[in-house]
Formats: sequence, structure tokens, C-alpha cells
Amino acid sequence: MTRATSAEQVAAWAALPAIDLWVAFASDAWIDGPAADGVPVAQVADATAFAVFEAMRAAGVDDVRRVGVLAESSAGIEAGRRAGAGAVVGVGGPELVNAEPDAVVAKDKFGDLYALRFAAARPFRPQVLLNPGPALTSDAVKHAAAGVDLCHREPEFTLLDEGIRAKIRRVAEVGDDWAVVLLAGSGTGANEASVRASVRPGRRALVVVNGVYGDRLLTIAQRAGIPTAVYERGWTEAADPDEIASRVASEPDLDALVVVHHETTTGLLNPVAEIAAVAGEAGLRVVVDGISSFGAEELELSGSGIDFLTCTSNKCLQGLPGAAFVLVSPAGLERIGEVPPTSVYLDLSGYLRGVEASSVPFTPAIPALASLDAALDEVLALGAADHLRRYAARAQVLDEVLEEIGLEPIVPGEHRSRTVRSIPLPTGVDYLPLHDELKRQGYVIYAGQGPLAKEIFRVCCMGALEPDVLRSFGIHLRRAIDRQAVPA
Amino acid sequence: MTRATSAEQVAAWAALPAIDLWVAFASDAWIDGPAADGVPVAQVADATAFAVFEAMRAAGVDDVRRVGVLAESSAGIEAGRRAGAGAVVGVGGPELVNAEPDAVVAKDKFGDLYALRFAAARPFRPQVLLNPGPALTSDAVKHAAAGVDLCHREPEFTLLDEGIRAKIRRVAEVGDDWAVVLLAGSGTGANEASVRASVRPGRRALVVVNGVYGDRLLTIAQRAGIPTAVYERGWTEAADPDEIASRVASEPDLDALVVVHHETTTGLLNPVAEIAAVAGEAGLRVVVDGISSFGAEELELSGSGIDFLTCTSNKCLQGLPGAAFVLVSPAGLERIGEVPPTSVYLDLSGYLRGVEASSVPFTPAIPALASLDAALDEVLALGAADHLRRYAARAQVLDEVLEEIGLEPIVPGEHRSRTVRSIPLPTGVDYLPLHDELKRQGYVIYAGQGPLAKEIFRVCCMGALEPDVLRSFGIHLRRAIDRQAVPA
Repeated sequence: MTRATSAEQVAAWAALPAIDLWVAFASDAWIDGPAADGVPVAQVADATAFAVFEAMRAAGVDDVRRVGVLAESSAGIEAGRRAGAGAVVGVGGPELVNAEPDAVVAKDKFGDLYALRFAAARPFRPQVLLNPGPALTSDAVKHAAAGVDLCHREPEFTLLDEGIRAKIRRVAEVGDDWAVVLLAGSGTGANEASVRASVRPGRRALVVVNGVYGDRLLTIAQRAGIPTAVYERGWTEAADPDEIASRVASEPDLDALVVVHHETTTGLLNPVAEIAAVAGEAGLRVVVDGISSFGAEELELSGSGIDFLTCTSNKCLQGLPGAAFVLVSPAGLERIGEVPPTSVYLDLSGYLRGVEASSVPFTPAIPALASLDAALDEVLALGAADHLRRYAARAQVLDEVLEEIGLEPIVPGEHRSRTVRSIPLPTGVDYLPLHDELKRQGYVIYAGQGPLAKEIFRVCCMGALEPDVLRSFGIHLRRAIDRQAVPA
Repeated sequence: MTRATSAEQVAAWAALPAIDLWVAFASDAWIDGPAADGVPVAQVADATAFAVFEAMRAAGVDDVRRVGVLAESSAGIEAGRRAGAGAVVGVGGPELVNAEPDAVVAKDKFGDLYALRFAAARPFRPQVLLNPGPALTSDAVKHAAAGVDLCHREPEFTLLDEGIRAKIRRVAEVGDDWAVVLLAGSGTGANEASVRASVRPGRRALVVVNGVYGDRLLTIAQRAGIPTAVYERGWTEAADPDEIASRVASEPDLDALVVVHHETTTGLLNPVAEIAAVAGEAGLRVVVDGISSFGAEELELSGSGIDFLTCTSNKCLQGLPGAAFVLVSPAGLERIGEVPPTSVYLDLSGYLRGVEASSVPFTPAIPALASLDAALDEVLALGAADHLRRYAARAQVLDEVLEEIGLEPIVPGEHRSRTVRSIPLPTGVDYLPLHDELKRQGYVIYAGQGPLAKEIFRVCCMGALEPDVLRSFGIHLRRAIDRQAVPA
């Protein structure tokens, strides 16, 4: 289970080895070898799955995923697989690759491999990710990524693809008149595709800039050759719908408004519902970057004035990174038809033709999509509204935890998102030592961006993460700060 | 094992259920329920991993991955996981989602789930993919995609990222003076990024068009606002380096040459080494779409005149889809610095700044990268030269198989790739019935594109696929054609 549900689990992730027992088939070499660094190695004579289970019973280890199998033959590798071992390592020459172990090593290299992947202090281990995505995902989500190989021109892929788009509509609570475009790439790809499709030749885009991501949207429009107007605010100031209304009224050549819902830079929410209402009223198409808000923040799309909402698989929907999508309103679809494409890979019209033909224009990110499908199943099993409430409740826990330590986020309370907190570094506390100490406890925090890099740190609560874990994190955060801070 | 190594394995994939034994914890409902459609269900009293192993021993099933666990409680779900069961299904309400089974179903919906994912005729099952990617991948490659959740700003991600780039250089046999840009997306994304970076303002690109993918490169350049010249040939005619040399000599405003190495449309190879030599000699930067050739076809890059070589994770390197990359020569790097970016997501200069800072500009497709890393390990364990030889040997087997049936690919022998064959549909044989009959045997073939859609079918041999499987495929192909063809 890679879901963070308790402080004990986090401690185990931080401290325990991933492999509790190595089972070596017919090999003397490992009993006292480099694997034996506090980890028992059981030698068994026959290379069968049942021999692994017997070794487990003898050693009192009951989780086959925490058992590693060391094999010098293809039969041993296959027996390790059949037993469901957490790791199967071939010891010998490259010909063992054909039997598909997790790794093949020479005997004298096993120590290095063990240190990197399986030992207590290994860098590749489950951690509580408190960065703004990729977030922790469930085993089922990860398992889906490792599913069967699929050809994207076969009906089973179409089943997956259409299922995902239907599930996204259900989460978004929109009807079939909204289109869902899926693409392989990060959220920035979905943003660029949307911005390129939203402005007719000879017209301008009004871009809201109050953080790194609004600034990136502006660069996207500029590099795409779209004339722009800028509405700029400070990084902790939400956009003002009234000010936008007067900008829109006074600049009649505006064709689209482009705005970030949740500025991950700081954890600031822009009031996109109100902004879209005034922009839509004035006849503008509205592009909302919902990459770090969709699935966490309340936002009614139907009839809102929002025409393009972008999102990614790996943040608040709790899938794996690699896929992004755009929800397009009926008016947005009409606009796409009026704008000559200026890209092939980031051309929404091409993706929409694919949707109509039950096809896709380019090879999709199948593992990321299979994971997204599993993640959407989890959101819908809970209920989309309850998923949002879970995010709201967890944000409240995070705010309580920070308040108890006396830490005040830089964004005013009324504009804070449910997932990101930017917190001034206390006097005497530098980011890197704070980060490194918390990481040793199993928690990954996040640095500030741009001018904030030396001023703040960020704590985020996206993903498969229980509130109790945030409470335990608070204890470690207080300790780490107390150790480093200069008394006031 | 999802590697296709034998006819028996393929037959098993096509015919056998994925789950041979369901173990139900403390539940009467399943003994005669819909799961019992020829599949044994063992009821056990206590929800422990060892109870699963005992049920397996009693039933004579020794592969825990072919065991499914049905559980009505979180403890049962977790015990199924610990046992390493191939599937863990929660039976009951949505609260079971928290325990992270592979699926949660109501009792009366298990039959549907079983049919879709676990029964003999399920659509989601391993098949021999004879389409031009995504190809079959090994278990280790898929396993890597389901690894731990990672934050891309942590050193362990940098370790992965830098490791992949170093391994790609080793496979390509180029030095550290070549850069490797990784991006999240399909190969078309890498192509568009390369084309955009290759032509200075006011100059033109010469695009070689002799198939769907050359045509797409032309569209990419046109939509990016790059003035173009076109060198066109028929779809089964390789580009002629002499003709290109005279074009280049007579049109002095050309700044780049853009060419597909392997036209997946037909299986045609363009002589890109010779083309790059003449274009490079004339001072042009050369963009080669190596998406379906890299890892399969011989191509020396160092000193070749090639400046941008694009590729993807999911074809001849045998990773999963979702990541793409560009190999950039020293002269290509210089060119990137001279071209103002016209995209944000597809801007090579931004990715290169990331590489220099040991960082990435956008959230990377981590699962696809982890898989690519594992796939590169497999290529390098065998040796890059032997990997190429494996592709050459397998192509020869495919050609023998086709020749025995009397099928002649449309591309002349001297221009054929090692991975794709376009074969005229025999008289009386339509694509869909042929496809469907072969799919029932476990083989997925591929349709023609554009005007060839009704004329040909394609058989490809990328991926984790042994030559013997192609021989068995040949037997099924002959039978399917004999059944449908009109005698001459």
C-alpha cells in the first residue's frame, strides 16, 4: 500500500528496508554476502513458488511483497514471479534478461543495487509527497499502469478512452455537449493547446497574471503569436472580477480571457466563476487553467462562461503523471472551428476529429490513461462531491497544524486553496536543511519559485493521503524548525 | 510474463482465463456465484496471506499471480495483497476503496467485472501486438511503471532522468557533446519541437514527403509558420540523395532538411545517412524522425550530419508509451540558440535549460520514464549492437514467413525496414474479418493508412517478441487467408 494512512506507515517507509527477506535459490554466495546487511537470506534447494512460501513461514514474514528472490537461472526467476515476490533479481550474465527479472546483476554488484533500491536508506522508496503533484497514488492506480500492453487502434483501447472521457464528465458534472480532449503530456501542453485554440486571428487575449503559471500562460500566448493584454496583480492578490469587467468593457478587440484557477506558486485561488461570468457576458471565450484545482476546489462548469478547462492526471484526481485533458464547452467547440491551427501536436481540432471517429491522432500515454481510469473509479466510488469534501476537510487539518506551530501562510485566508500553503521560512531556517531533515522522516516538502525561493517553503496536500499523516508531519515540522530557528 | 516467447503462450493468452482460482474470504456468496463460470472458487475462513497459499496448494495452482482474492473487508483486501494475488476485488460498498483493491464491486456486478477483466474472452488480456507500437514490453518494464511515487524536484528523480539520458547516449553511441531532451508526449511532440527549433527566421525547410509521417512533418512546419520546400516521392519510393543534393544546391535559402528515417506508413526506409551527408555538407541542419527506427535500424549519428534525431519510448526500445526524446548534435544545439521559440511546451531551449540546471521545466511522465529506464537496461544488458541484430534476424523470419504464404510486401526489398511490412490484401480478403480472426488467435495486426486503408494490411515486429511467435502467426495468417480468399 502506497497510500499514506498513518504515522506508523510513514515511519516504516522512512526507516525500514523494503525487502525483509531474501530467498536465494540453490546458491551459497548470498548467505554472508552484501545482501546480509541486517536482512535475512534464506537458502532453499528447489526453485518453486511453494519453496518461497515455506521460507517465508519459517522466517515469520507474511507479506510476499517484502520478499526478494535471488536466482541464478530462468526457472528461479520465474518461480520468484509465480510466488509474487516483491523483487526478483537475476544473479549472473545478461542472458538472464530473457527471463525478465526486475534486474540482473553480477554477484559483486548486488550490494550497489541493494543500496539503491532495497535497503533502509534507499532513495527509491515510498515517501509522503507534500509537493504539488505528482502526488501519492493508490496501489490500484499504479497497478493499472502496469496492465497489459494495448494497441491504441483496438476496441479495448477505445473502451478505455471513452470510459475516461465519460468519467471526467461525471466528475465535472457536465453533459455530453461538453467535449473532453485527452492528450499525452503535462498540463502545460493542455494549456498551450487551449490558448492556441481560443483566439481568432486579429483579436487579442486578456491574460490574468498573478503567479508563475499565469505568467507562463502569457508566454504561451506570446510565443503562439497571439496579441495579448495583461491584467496583473501581486502574487498573493486574487484577480478582481470588477476590474476585469471594466477592462473587458473598454477593450473591444478581446476575444478570450485566460486565467489560472489555482496559482500553485503560492496557493492562491482566483475567483474564476465570477471572472468567467463577466467575461462570458461580454462574449469572450474563457480558458481556465484548472491543473491543480480540478478535483479539489468547487467549480460549477455548466453555464458558467468557462469554455476550456485544463487539467492533468497526476494532481487532485490522484492518477500518475503523463496525461492531461481539456474540458471544452459547446461555445468553446464553436471557437475551435474558427481558429486556424498553429500546431499539430497541440491542435485541439485534430484531437476532436479523433474523438468523433472513435480514434486518436497520436499514440496516447496508455499507462497514464489506464491509471487515470482507475483513479477516476476511486473518485466516483467515493462520489465526486465527497472527494471535494475530503480535500476541504484535509486542508482544514493542514491549517490547524500550521496554526499550532505559529506558521502563517502568505496568502490571505479567504483566497487559499485546499491543497497548497506557502509559508515564510522562520528566521534562521534555510529551505534545504529543513527539507532534508523532513525527508529523513519520510516527508517531501517543496521549495518556493522565483523571488520566493529563498523566502518560503510549500506544503501541499494532494493525493492519497490521510489527515492523520498531516498531523504527524506537523510534529516533525515543529521539531525541525525548533532545531534550526533563531529564537525571536 | 507478457513477453511473447512461444506459440503455446500465445494460445494461452487467447484462450485461458487470467485468473485460475478465486479465493473468497469468509463469504458464502461466491461458491456458486457468477465467478464460478468454470473457475474454481475456494472459500477460506481466515483472511491471511498463508490461507491463500494453502488454498493454492489444495487446488494445485502454483502461480499466485493467477489467483484472485474476493474480500468483503479491508483486512481481507490487505491479506490478498500480502499474498501477491494477481487480482484483489473488494465485494461491497465504496468504503472498501480505502483499502485499495484493484476494483470494488457490488455482489451482483462481479459477473460483469469478471467478463471484462478476468474471463477467457476478456478484452483486456495479453495479445501479440503486431502493430507498429505500442509494442509488447517485458514484465520488468511494466513493473517499473508501477514503482514508487516520485516528486520530480527530488534528487532521486534527477538520478533517474540523468541515467536515462546517459543510457540513450550509449545506445546511440554518441558522446557527451550530444544533448538528450526528454519530454512527456508522443513522438509527434518531439518532432514538432525539433522542426520548430531547426529553421532560423527568414529561411526555409526542405521536407521529404513519401508517406503519412513525412506529410505530417510538412504540416508541422507549415502550421509553425516555417516557409517550406517539398521533395516528394511515391509512398514506396525511397528519397534519392542525389536529387536532394541538387535541390539543396539550387535553393540557397534552405536552412534545414526534415526527413523520416522509417515511414511506418509502408515500412519504407529513407537513406538518411546519405541524405544527411549531402545536406550537412551544404550547411543545413538535419532533422531525422527516428521514431520507429531508433533501436532497430543501423544509423551512425556521430559526424553524420544529423542534428536532431527524435524517438519515443514505446517502439523499438520496448518501453511504455508516454515519453519521447530528441538527440541533439553540437551543431543542433547551436541552431536552437539562434531560433526564437514559438512554443512553450514544445520549446527545446527550455528543456535544455532544465538539463543544465539538473531540472525539468514541466512535470515529466515519470511512469513512462521509469519504464524507459528499465527498457534501456534490457537493451544495454544484451548490448545495443546485439539488440539491433535481434531486430534484423527477426525481420528475416517475418520475411520468410510471408514468402512461404506467397505474400509480397509493397516496398521493394532493398528499402524495407526491420519492423514493418505492408502487404496487399489478397483478392476476396477484407481487412476487418482478417484482423478479427487473427485477434481471436491472439495476434493483433494493423490496418493501412489513407488510400492504402482498403488495399493493404500491416504486420510489424517491434517489442518483446520471439521469432518463433512470428512462425506460429504465419500458420494462423495462412489459415485465415485461405478461409477468406477468392481462389485465383
